Amino acid sequence: MAATIALNLPTNPYQIQIDGGNIDRLGEKLAGLKIGTKVTIVSNPSVFGHYGDRAVKSISQSGFEVIECILPDGEEHKNLRTIEQIYDRAIASKLERSSTFLALGGGVIGDMTGFAAATWNRGTNFIQVPTTLLAMVDASVGGKTGVNHPQGKNKIGAFYQPKLVAIDPDVLQTLPAREFRAGMAEVIKYAVIWDADLFDRLLNHPQLSNIEDLAPEFIADILTRSCQAKADVVLKDEKESHLRGILNYGHTIGHAIESITNYARFNHGEAVGMGMVVAGRLAAALGLWSKDDADRQDLIIAKAGLTTHLPADLDLEKIVHLTHSDKKVEAGKVRYILPSSIGYGRKIGDRIATKDRQTILNEIGREVEDNEIINVLRSM
Amino acid sequence: MAATIALNLPTNPYQIQIDGGNIDRLGEKLAGLKIGTKVTIVSNPSVFGHYGDRAVKSISQSGFEVIECILPDGEEHKNLRTIEQIYDRAIASKLERSSTFLALGGGVIGDMTGFAAATWNRGTNFIQVPTTLLAMVDASVGGKTGVNHPQGKNKIGAFYQPKLVAIDPDVLQTLPAREFRAGMAEVIKYAVIWDADLFDRLLNHPQLSNIEDLAPEFIADILTRSCQAKADVVLKDEKESHLRGILNYGHTIGHAIESITNYARFNHGEAVGMGMVVAGRLAAALGLWSKDDADRQDLIIAKAGLTTHLPADLDLEKIVHLTHSDKKVEAGKVRYILPSSIGYGRKIGDRIATKDRQTILNEIGREVEDNEIINVLRSM
Repeated sequence: MAATIALNLPTNPYQIQIDGGNIDRLGEKLAGLKIGTKVTIVSNPSVFGHYGDRAVKSISQSGFEVIECILPDGEEHKNLRTIEQIYDRAIASKLERSSTFLALGGGVIGDMTGFAAATWNRGTNFIQVPTTLLAMVDASVGGKTGVNHPQGKNKIGAFYQPKLVAIDPDVLQTLPAREFRAGMAEVIKYAVIWDADLFDRLLNHPQLSNIEDLAPEFIADILTRSCQAKADVVLKDEKESHLRGILNYGHTIGHAIESITNYARFNHGEAVGMGMVVAGRLAAALGLWSKDDADRQDLIIAKAGLTTHLPADLDLEKIVHLTHSDKKVEAGKVRYILPSSIGYGRKIGDRIATKDRQTILNEIGREVEDNEIINVLRSM
Repeated sequence: MAATIALNLPTNPYQIQIDGGNIDRLGEKLAGLKIGTKVTIVSNPSVFGHYGDRAVKSISQSGFEVIECILPDGEEHKNLRTIEQIYDRAIASKLERSSTFLALGGGVIGDMTGFAAATWNRGTNFIQVPTTLLAMVDASVGGKTGVNHPQGKNKIGAFYQPKLVAIDPDVLQTLPAREFRAGMAEVIKYAVIWDADLFDRLLNHPQLSNIEDLAPEFIADILTRSCQAKADVVLKDEKESHLRGILNYGHTIGHAIESITNYARFNHGEAVGMGMVVAGRLAAALGLWSKDDADRQDLIIAKAGLTTHLPADLDLEKIVHLTHSDKKVEAGKVRYILPSSIGYGRKIGDRIATKDRQTILNEIGREVEDNEIINVLRSM
């Protein structure tokens, strides 16, 4: 069940290619692009241990010189120090502007490799081969690259588009179960904000938490629909001026939960899952969304093995305070993405040409007072 | 004698505004742009000592919150460590994506500030206020930003356009004489590659090496013509795929001379001056350019107080070897920019739509064998 999604960005068009076994077809895919003669594979020890040999073999056999750059695993290494390791490898390998950086790994590897590609010689070729569900449906589409500042996540970065995203769904079989569930949070997000069909499929599927029991066709379908949803949004708003904010659904509270627990207790998807429950209830409480739809969303989140309540020990006031330092804050007010129906973003996007920026912002969400959000948090 | 040059880039149009006293008008200029409420002035102690108070006063009076970020002076600080100082200031000042970084200084300050602006929150507003002749006519136009890798100059960077370049020619009065002469090397470059009128004006002017003896009108004229020349080239080739290579005139040998002397003995302009003498003689030796024109070029270079011979102690073989590691190397061959007439680039640019990339590359220069260049070097 091969699928191809075309990202027809005005200046940097590229494809997302989804097919089982793509790891062994990387060489032929790269040979079809104009990307020089040297390919630097950036990965971490665990992913490279699983798939490095196959990737290197395929790319070498297509005539490229392959350079390996293995970085330490984990979000705590997503910083400029680690980027310098990529630069050092690049200088030692005499990488020219026509050379290529290929990210083989999850979101951390993808973000760092993309930033190195964006900034080496003022821009080299970049290929994404995401190996986690989260990276496949989120990080690999949209061109966000970067690293963390010691006091702020993703504060240092660039918008930089890959030349190709090659997804091999088979690699999810080696993904830890907790990471698979975390990725499902973003899949559910796309269902709510963009794809009512996907929402029904998730709702009607017997279970969503164990990949071993999910049919390859089902996995390929949710991958394709999720990537298409993100692609649709990014195509309508490449530089984050209005509609793209909808991708932040569940993330305002999610980020605050990650931050208050020092990014150690919950992973990104788990926090976003809780954030979507909060945002859904807030939308219902404000009369924007039907309570039935919000409940159905929570049912899917629970079915994916994600938690739908806030742990009792979290400081709710502090969570609300933290939302004020979120990157999307404008002039001190906090804007939440709030659904009005399942798949509401697509309807807004369909008529985007007839609307000004402020109208779109008003349709995808609302500025919320602290006491409104506190009441919802206390009810959980 | 106010002049405005419009850089009508497809995605990021901006202006270069040249006028005496612009330092005191920064506030009103910024107020006319959409650039948030916070302006971070990045500068070094010597420049900020001269002009910091006036810049801060003007910008504050227009209602902006001004943050000062003073970096150590000198090319040896143009690295990621210093960029991190800018990031630290940005996080402490809670800079949002709508905030602005303003470079007040020479090329090093401009390159670093631009890179920080390009990468903070994946892109913030950037304003250039160049204070050296070199930065005014070269670094402030074209969108190149970045820092050095320990083993390679400008290896880390991004293309990022400012929202405005504000040039105040009066600040050149406090520029050290040696730096003024170095900037003249780039002015002479534009005369040779693009502007025959500028060439005649330089040739016919009694002297070019002491700014105190140059009329403000003359300085404003050479600034305007130089910026216009670079703007013309950049507009025709924003991303360096063909014509923009012509800006590298004199730089292939120039970079090698800087490198072999560890960037300590000659500054960039002095090295480029020697590089243009070499390239001019090479063009004449190859029968591409008239020897009279090459001699006239050398006369202007000498009149600007720049050296037209190679110091006897330089290792000529090593210089040629170093040209092979230049960034513009494609597949191991070394391409020199070689003039065929005074202002030849403008003629090529005028008919650029009718030519393919290779034709343009062939018209602006030529791949040269090592023995051809060695012969010219030995003759100096």
